Amino acid sequence: MRSSRIGLMGGILSLILTAPLRAQDSKPAPPRPHEETARRIVATGLKSCQAHSLLTKLCTEVGHRLSGSAGAEKAVAWSKATMTELGFENVHLEPIMVPRWVRGPVEEAAVVGSENSTSAPIPLKICALGGSIATPDDGITAEVLEVRSFPELHAAGEKAKGKIIFFSRPFDPSVINTFAAYGGAVDQRANGAVEASKAGGLAALVRSMSTALDDVPHTGAMYYTDVAKVPAAAVSTIGANRLSELLKKDPKLKLRMKLTCATLSDVESANVVGEIVGSEKPKEIVVIGGHLDSWDKGQGAHDDGSGCIHAIEALRILKELGLRPKRTIRAVMFMNEENGLRGGQGYAERSRPGETHIAAIESDAGGFSPRGFGVGGNPAVFAKIARWAYLFEPIGADQIRPGGGGGDISPLGSKGVPTLGVNFDTQRYFDYHHSDNDTIDKVNPRELELGAAAMAIMAYILAEEGVSPSP
Amino acid sequence: MRSSRIGLMGGILSLILTAPLRAQDSKPAPPRPHEETARRIVATGLKSCQAHSLLTKLCTEVGHRLSGSAGAEKAVAWSKATMTELGFENVHLEPIMVPRWVRGPVEEAAVVGSENSTSAPIPLKICALGGSIATPDDGITAEVLEVRSFPELHAAGEKAKGKIIFFSRPFDPSVINTFAAYGGAVDQRANGAVEASKAGGLAALVRSMSTALDDVPHTGAMYYTDVAKVPAAAVSTIGANRLSELLKKDPKLKLRMKLTCATLSDVESANVVGEIVGSEKPKEIVVIGGHLDSWDKGQGAHDDGSGCIHAIEALRILKELGLRPKRTIRAVMFMNEENGLRGGQGYAERSRPGETHIAAIESDAGGFSPRGFGVGGNPAVFAKIARWAYLFEPIGADQIRPGGGGGDISPLGSKGVPTLGVNFDTQRYFDYHHSDNDTIDKVNPRELELGAAAMAIMAYILAEEGVSPSP
Repeated sequence: MRSSRIGLMGGILSLILTAPLRAQDSKPAPPRPHEETARRIVATGLKSCQAHSLLTKLCTEVGHRLSGSAGAEKAVAWSKATMTELGFENVHLEPIMVPRWVRGPVEEAAVVGSENSTSAPIPLKICALGGSIATPDDGITAEVLEVRSFPELHAAGEKAKGKIIFFSRPFDPSVINTFAAYGGAVDQRANGAVEASKAGGLAALVRSMSTALDDVPHTGAMYYTDVAKVPAAAVSTIGANRLSELLKKDPKLKLRMKLTCATLSDVESANVVGEIVGSEKPKEIVVIGGHLDSWDKGQGAHDDGSGCIHAIEALRILKELGLRPKRTIRAVMFMNEENGLRGGQGYAERSRPGETHIAAIESDAGGFSPRGFGVGGNPAVFAKIARWAYLFEPIGADQIRPGGGGGDISPLGSKGVPTLGVNFDTQRYFDYHHSDNDTIDKVNPRELELGAAAMAIMAYILAEEGVSPSP
Repeated sequence: MRSSRIGLMGGILSLILTAPLRAQDSKPAPPRPHEETARRIVATGLKSCQAHSLLTKLCTEVGHRLSGSAGAEKAVAWSKATMTELGFENVHLEPIMVPRWVRGPVEEAAVVGSENSTSAPIPLKICALGGSIATPDDGITAEVLEVRSFPELHAAGEKAKGKIIFFSRPFDPSVINTFAAYGGAVDQRANGAVEASKAGGLAALVRSMSTALDDVPHTGAMYYTDVAKVPAAAVSTIGANRLSELLKKDPKLKLRMKLTCATLSDVESANVVGEIVGSEKPKEIVVIGGHLDSWDKGQGAHDDGSGCIHAIEALRILKELGLRPKRTIRAVMFMNEENGLRGGQGYAERSRPGETHIAAIESDAGGFSPRGFGVGGNPAVFAKIARWAYLFEPIGADQIRPGGGGGDISPLGSKGVPTLGVNFDTQRYFDYHHSDNDTIDKVNPRELELGAAAMAIMAYILAEEGVSPSP
């Protein structure tokens, strides 16, 4: 893209021809309600662009922060200090008990060939899934059964016994929304160990939940039931492809894997809270937030440092503009979304005399360009919010769709509070999610800031207008 | 983002709550015209995901490819071979003469302090602007006048004489669309040298046209008129900030800069053309394309390798699906958009007996998530195309707006051909544009593929339906 006609013709014709000048191409019209406020929120956010600086601090001064870890403790202190420094009101911690799972120093796997093989072991990049037990001290060495689904595993019958079960179904690439593709594959990660155990397998090895083809394994939660526990790990997508190829050549090959993870006792942690107190109805609350914990990989930049910073930056922008709505906006950094949801549950269960939550907004889908909101709760609330779409049109975040929320605010939703989730462009999220790739350099400052602006606008108008049907 | 309820509740409730399942959440309805075709185009594109492999080859086997360079020659051969290999019809070159500007081996600048300064020189990262003359062999060493605008330069009067004019106005960060922000700053790059010369300055140094704060200078076209030519360079945004700070402390500091660039004689190059020939009206043409030339920095991955590959991949997808529309779709890799537009002009001027161009689509705004199309030409054509927005809704590219096109197809537009530009998310484009940062690793495979799918759908329906008002 050039600008030669700028020089040759002295104008910006070529730019107008090639650029979608969204806010600029409409004819002047009287501003609609809150339109000027929304415009100021966006401009103020983009001009100061503080979200990325804040996220950089969280990612580099704190780093990853799995529930119960030293990183999580640091993150709680950092959030409290940051909110205090920014002048938020009623900054405080709300203690909760959280689970504590530790990865341990060793996680390794290698193809060691079949019985009489003389070739050197072929290492695979793996990581333990969150919640997994360790392997025995000398690891597990066994043949591998590759399956693409639980029905395929069930059909294998006796063949699964004594094997490492390799769940290799990739994301369906033809699905446009990557969250839907994730939804179509993640049963393998969540329930693979239980299904492997039921089938008589010794361990589960799961293709990483990722849209990227690279050599970085992606962790994530897995669950046990009352069947015997077997260890579970993720293998990088490149490693998964390699293993599939090797199995085609030598179905009798053996895999050696070793994990040293463990679940320890619960420890105390906390949600971190800060507010702009409402001017007229301070006991009516709009919650905005993300989850402060992350997996113990990368820096939790997109998942969910971005969501936390969206909420903090949203309040900061409103403060910079001196906007104090009628109702209180409360930023909550929820602890333990990834492997327990104790923060979300604890927040909803806590006694809050006299308070009413009128809505809750969660950002937990990364720091990409915002595209809109999903709105859970009753249709009247959705209809009211959908009428505000024009406020989000200049930033391209005007897709207001029914159905939405987030893990941490789902316990509030269960109590009847309308829940909203911020939606973003989804294409890159699972390249980074739950892996060492989820670092600050993957977050664009302007995209992140637009997410904060979207959250600020929605929080402000909800706190100003409430959710009762308009007269 | 986690999936614990997937494990605990055996469903994907949490995903449905948190994800914008755009294509999935509507109730079944009879498909609208071309809806099934559009769906197949997207699924086929995402499934094979060839765009990124093709762009990787262009970026790594060819690299950057400024008009007249060996890289450009290689790019022409690569494009012809690739289109032939993919089975396109009538693959051929259309020769044109192009300008040839060469950067030369040296481009350097350093703050050398004022007259009696003893401090060591402070180097700044600069690069010559495209089209600039060289400095004298021993460079230029002079005091610096920093200005934010041409009016400020004009007001400086005598103070500009004998100085290096430093144009330091940044992009306005509060402007949402970065192309508009670029439009508000790029006069400095395009016309800074002429204005510096008129004011009696010795050279122009221009803050890089970039949304990023980093130490990488961004080149781009500059123009001379009949005033005396002075050399012009871009300085990185970090370098520009540093220079501004140093000038505040020492307004008498001197800057030394040296450029060894030169304009050589024009050389022959070519547009590269390949088609799917129409089944009923083969002489009615829909052009799709991007520009094959790039600046001589980075790999021209987003600008405009992505646009070229969008067009090639669009035809490839249609071929894979066996879709041959009534009219011909012609992919054109235009040469010399960046510093001459000879390819676009040559294409439009060429004699093509019996042919009618019914529309032209250009992609020249990067390989990001597509958001829609800008449609130039008459309102009836816009109205017809706007009615097809639903075809682009599943991929989030349904913003069909009036006004659009692209540099290379603007000569066709001048002859009355309706022109369309593909619009993308704009936030990251100018982080990379015209710099060493514009490399393949900055292009997400799925985002790139969605751009190709958007172009394929639009090209197909235009070629199938034509642009006459619907009966």
